[in-house]
Amino acid sequence: MAHKPTLLSLAMDLNVSRQTISNAIHHPERLQADTLARIRAELDRQGYAPSRAARQLRNNRAGAFGYRLHPTFDGINGNILDRFLHELVATAQAAGFSVVVFAANSDEDEIAQLQHLHQTGAIDGAILSASSEGDPRPTALATAGLPGASFGRPWAAPASPYAWVDVDGKAGTAAAVTSLRNAHHDRIGWIGWNPEVGVGHDRYLGYKEALGDLIDPDLQRRYPDSTDAGRRAALELAEAGATAVVCASDSLALGAVTSGAFARGNIFGFDDTPVAAAMEMNSVRQPIEDIARTCFQLALSSLEKNIKPTGTLVKASPVIRTSIER
Amino acid sequence: MAHKPTLLSLAMDLNVSRQTISNAIHHPERLQADTLARIRAELDRQGYAPSRAARQLRNNRAGAFGYRLHPTFDGINGNILDRFLHELVATAQAAGFSVVVFAANSDEDEIAQLQHLHQTGAIDGAILSASSEGDPRPTALATAGLPGASFGRPWAAPASPYAWVDVDGKAGTAAAVTSLRNAHHDRIGWIGWNPEVGVGHDRYLGYKEALGDLIDPDLQRRYPDSTDAGRRAALELAEAGATAVVCASDSLALGAVTSGAFARGNIFGFDDTPVAAAMEMNSVRQPIEDIARTCFQLALSSLEKNIKPTGTLVKASPVIRTSIER
Repeated sequence: MAHKPTLLSLAMDLNVSRQTISNAIHHPERLQADTLARIRAELDRQGYAPSRAARQLRNNRAGAFGYRLHPTFDGINGNILDRFLHELVATAQAAGFSVVVFAANSDEDEIAQLQHLHQTGAIDGAILSASSEGDPRPTALATAGLPGASFGRPWAAPASPYAWVDVDGKAGTAAAVTSLRNAHHDRIGWIGWNPEVGVGHDRYLGYKEALGDLIDPDLQRRYPDSTDAGRRAALELAEAGATAVVCASDSLALGAVTSGAFARGNIFGFDDTPVAAAMEMNSVRQPIEDIARTCFQLALSSLEKNIKPTGTLVKASPVIRTSIER
Repeated sequence: MAHKPTLLSLAMDLNVSRQTISNAIHHPERLQADTLARIRAELDRQGYAPSRAARQLRNNRAGAFGYRLHPTFDGINGNILDRFLHELVATAQAAGFSVVVFAANSDEDEIAQLQHLHQTGAIDGAILSASSEGDPRPTALATAGLPGASFGRPWAAPASPYAWVDVDGKAGTAAAVTSLRNAHHDRIGWIGWNPEVGVGHDRYLGYKEALGDLIDPDLQRRYPDSTDAGRRAALELAEAGATAVVCASDSLALGAVTSGAFARGNIFGFDDTPVAAAMEMNSVRQPIEDIARTCFQLALSSLEKNIKPTGTLVKASPVIRTSIER
C-alpha cells in the first residue's frame, strides 16, 4: 500500500525543507512562483491534504458532533432512531461536519464519554436522542461546557440548557382517536407502555383528551413494548367490549393486528414504521427527517453561541391505509 | 457554559508558562515535585485532557475508522446493517476506537470521502459493508494506502486486497430447502431479488443445489425486494403448484405470509429480522454480532499490518418458529 504523504515525505521527495512545504500551503507569498508551482503540482499528484489534526490545533475545532447509538429494542420501533441518525449524518455532512458515534450503558456513561471526546478534541458538541423524565444529560453537558441539542424534550424540567426538537405525540394520538370517533366508535381502547412516562405518557394524554367523557379505565392496558404484549392486550380489550384501539407503538399495534381481535382499520399504531406500511396498518407518522435537520441546525447554532435554548414541537399526523370500519 | 481548558488558560490560571504546563504533562521529570503536584491538581480539577489533535500530530493516528451509513431501503431487511453498526461501534469502543459515520451517493463517492477523511487525519482506516459484484472499493482504497476490512466478499474478483467476513447465504438457503424436503415437500418455490446478483444469487444457489433434480423454472420468481412483491409472487407460485417457498429476504417472506397462499410454516425468509420474530415466521439467521466483531478485528489487523487479506465465511442457520406442514 502507498503511504499517506506527510510534510516530511514530501520534503524528501521534492528535496526541500519541511518549512518550505508548510509555507507552500499556509504562506504561498513567501515562495518564488516556480518553486510554489513545483510543490503544488506534487501535492496534487500525491493527493496531500493538510492534516485535520494540524488544522484543529490552529482553529481549535474538531468539525464533528458526538452521538450515542442507542440499542435497538425490537427493530420495529427502534427503526425511528436509525432513520434519525441517517438523516442527521447527511445533514451534518452537507454542513462540513462528521458524526462520531459511540455506545453507552447509561445516561451517566453517555455524559462521561461525550465529555471525554470533547476534552480530547474529537468533537465540538453533542447531539442527544431518547430523552426521558428527569433527563440529566443537558444540564450535565452544558455545565461541562459542551454545546449541543436534543431530539426529545426535557420531560420533567420546565426548561433545558439545550435547545430541543420533539414530536407532538399527544396531538398525534388525539387525531387518531378523532378519526375513530368520526366513524362512530365510542368504545376505543388504549394499549400503552408500562411504565407510562415521557413519550408514552404524552401519547396517552392525547388519547385521554380526545376521548373526554368517554374515557374508561377498563379499556386501557399497559405492557412492556412488544408484539406479544400487543396481541394479549388486544384480546383482553375486545373481551372488555372495545371496538377499536389506539396503541403507543407499531410493535404493539402489529400484535393487535395479528390477534385478529379487531378489523385492521380499527387499530392505530405509532411511528409509521416500514412494518406498518408493509402490513397496511394505520399509524401516526412523525416527520423524522425534518426533526433530524432541525436538531442539527440547533446543535450548530449552539456551537456558534448565537441562540438561546428553545423548544420546537413538530406535528405528528395519522396515516390511514386501511379504512376504519364502523 | 464553562470554557474548555487549554494550555493557555491553565497557564494563566496557575500563573506559570504554557511550556511548564506542557512539561507537567509530557516531561514531568523536568519540574519540581511541588510545582508538578500543584499543576496536576488543577488539571484534574478542570478536567483537562491533552488534546487528541496534539496526540494525533505526535503519533499520526486518529483512533477512528470510517464507515458509510447505507440508506435503509425498507426498514425490514435494512435493519441488518443497523445491527452491524451497533455491534461494530461497541467493539471498536472496547478497543479504544471511535467510528466516524458519513453518507455517500455511490461507491465512488464513498471512496472519495474515505480518502478525504484519511488524508485529513480523521480516520486511520475504513470498514466497508454491502459489497456487490465488481465492488471497486477494496482495490481503490488499498491503492490509496487506506487499511481496512469488509463485511461482504468481493463477488466478482477471486481475491481482494481487503480482508473480509461474510455470511454463507448459500448454505443457509440450502438448509431451509432441506428442512422442507424432510417434511416431504417436492414443489418448493423460490422468491428472489431482481437483479439476482451477489448476495441474492448466492442465496439462490443454495436453493438450487439443495433441490437438485427437483428444480423447476416455473416455480421461481424474481422481483425488486418488497413486501408487495412477495405477496404477488407467493400467489403466482401457489397457482403454479408450489406447496412451500424459500425467499431471499424477510420482506419478501412477510408478503408471502400475508398473501395467505401458503401455511406460515412452509415459508422461509432470510435474515431473521425482528419482524420475522414478531410474526412467528421461519427464517435464516446470520450471526451479525459475530460478523461485526470479526470485521473490526480484521480492520485492526490491517491497520497494524500483521495479516495478509483473507476471507472468512460464517454459517447461517434456519430458525423454525412455526412447524412445517406437509
